[in-house]
Amino acid sequence: MIQVIDRKALEEKIPLSRELVKEIEHAFTALVTEEVTMPEIMRIDIPEFNGEVDIKSAYIPGYDSFCVKLSSGFFDNPEKGLPSANGLMILISSETGEVKQIFADQGLLTDLRTAAAGAVAAKHVSRENSERAGILGTGAQARYQLEALTLVRPIKTAYVWGRTPEKATAFQKEMEEKLGISITVGDTAEEVVRNSDIVVTTTPSSEPIVQADWLHPGLHITAMGSDAEHKQELSGGVIQKADVFTCDVLHQSRRLGELRTCNDAKIIENTIELGEVTGNQTVSRTSDNQITITDLSGTGVQDTAIARYTFQILGG
Amino acid sequence: MIQVIDRKALEEKIPLSRELVKEIEHAFTALVTEEVTMPEIMRIDIPEFNGEVDIKSAYIPGYDSFCVKLSSGFFDNPEKGLPSANGLMILISSETGEVKQIFADQGLLTDLRTAAAGAVAAKHVSRENSERAGILGTGAQARYQLEALTLVRPIKTAYVWGRTPEKATAFQKEMEEKLGISITVGDTAEEVVRNSDIVVTTTPSSEPIVQADWLHPGLHITAMGSDAEHKQELSGGVIQKADVFTCDVLHQSRRLGELRTCNDAKIIENTIELGEVTGNQTVSRTSDNQITITDLSGTGVQDTAIARYTFQILGG
Repeated sequence: MIQVIDRKALEEKIPLSRELVKEIEHAFTALVTEEVTMPEIMRIDIPEFNGEVDIKSAYIPGYDSFCVKLSSGFFDNPEKGLPSANGLMILISSETGEVKQIFADQGLLTDLRTAAAGAVAAKHVSRENSERAGILGTGAQARYQLEALTLVRPIKTAYVWGRTPEKATAFQKEMEEKLGISITVGDTAEEVVRNSDIVVTTTPSSEPIVQADWLHPGLHITAMGSDAEHKQELSGGVIQKADVFTCDVLHQSRRLGELRTCNDAKIIENTIELGEVTGNQTVSRTSDNQITITDLSGTGVQDTAIARYTFQILGG
Repeated sequence: MIQVIDRKALEEKIPLSRELVKEIEHAFTALVTEEVTMPEIMRIDIPEFNGEVDIKSAYIPGYDSFCVKLSSGFFDNPEKGLPSANGLMILISSETGEVKQIFADQGLLTDLRTAAAGAVAAKHVSRENSERAGILGTGAQARYQLEALTLVRPIKTAYVWGRTPEKATAFQKEMEEKLGISITVGDTAEEVVRNSDIVVTTTPSSEPIVQADWLHPGLHITAMGSDAEHKQELSGGVIQKADVFTCDVLHQSRRLGELRTCNDAKIIENTIELGEVTGNQTVSRTSDNQITITDLSGTGVQDTAIARYTFQILGG
């Protein structure tokens, strides 16, 4: 009988850890070094109920299993007292096609693998001595991203900004306690960017937030909020000002991520995929003064990596 | 907790029935009368293990739930003592995106909805007084298709042909007992076609089997075997000779079905989708002398219809 593992069982057993970051790092490397099968995202729109289901999958040669992920967003659910996000990760044997396990994780594993990708980006692109983290946004992913940075960089302080001050204060309180670092609530996004070595943007904004003249030498930005045609967190000039622009998957960044509105052929040509860096095919940052950006729109290989890892941790 | 229903539990409760045929008929109608969301099939190839996973889905406006189906074929499995087909049907609430139930049906519901589509085709396109069924192929789907015909036409006798005579004999014995009709094993596919009012082709053949000069006035053929780029059951001349050519989904028939090798613009233009007939938008056969063909390559709306129907039958 196929086992369905729910979110509660996972919360206790799957923390954000250096081990998980390693798994995601390996998946990024595989994305450029292996013949990965990663079909286009399937999307089913349910306009009558303001809902959508996205399906992602990726097979990595040499992995004994792969994941098919269904993730849904039904944006009228909160009015009904229900979470808007739902979904499943289905782990399938690469050798036989049999379903090994189903995770009814309500987005937990996606949150974790996304945060782990943020850690991979910081580890490979930001300055090694980055101590000041800046977080734009105050949701679950904002929390995970800050925690992820502490796994790979000697983060001592953090700045946070969000549209709702109460949420920023709640973030501050919760994360100071959890991570034992000092956190400041910024009055503006600009204040956060100007006072940080690494900035992670985690908003669902459709209007660019970060402006080019806020950028300073040595800054690294990971933009992980934009993953759809209508979203954007960085204004056009920001990318122009970066010395190194990296992303998880180039064609996806151009379709759904921060490169969507960029028509500069030179920037596109010079874009480095994260797997080229993790796989030691190329170097990203070459000096502490450079400004670097990583755009993450999310890939199926991350789902495959974390689903397989979770199955192992659970003793599968 | 999400419930996973396995094949055994379904086998006892979901028979091939007129009620199911009605559900599938309604789904075909919806396909042409409603703004159905039916994305392109997602396919994940696992070349290392001679395997593939296909993902299909369709949302029908007005239906309270829809299905996402994973179906896998791992063609080295039989050597390992395992069935080559696996998969899941996942029934999702149209209103909230919540997973209502998962069917680990090992292809049973797909077999049933495919057979029910054969019944819909026969009911709407074949001669009403069709009494002689002809079946090419001797597998599970051959059995279901014959049974399906008996639900909608006064079938009295059947002819069967397959490449392996022993399998044809086993089919004959089993189905005579099950359906209480007289079945003859044909020496050739030609013999079957020449002696039938309705022929259903159920083979995975990549070489056309049915030849144009075997066709006789009044014959109806349902071709359901071809559902991939390399498959074909009808030789080109067969379609040319038909008075009426119908299919489930035109663009899919041109990509994966019997229209794949057809470049005759007039045939393509005159092709009728089954939903246009079931929805009374047009008429297919207009006389008992016409030769008619229906090509079925399988659609997500059938999966949504049967998954939802199954959930109801199980008391969901």
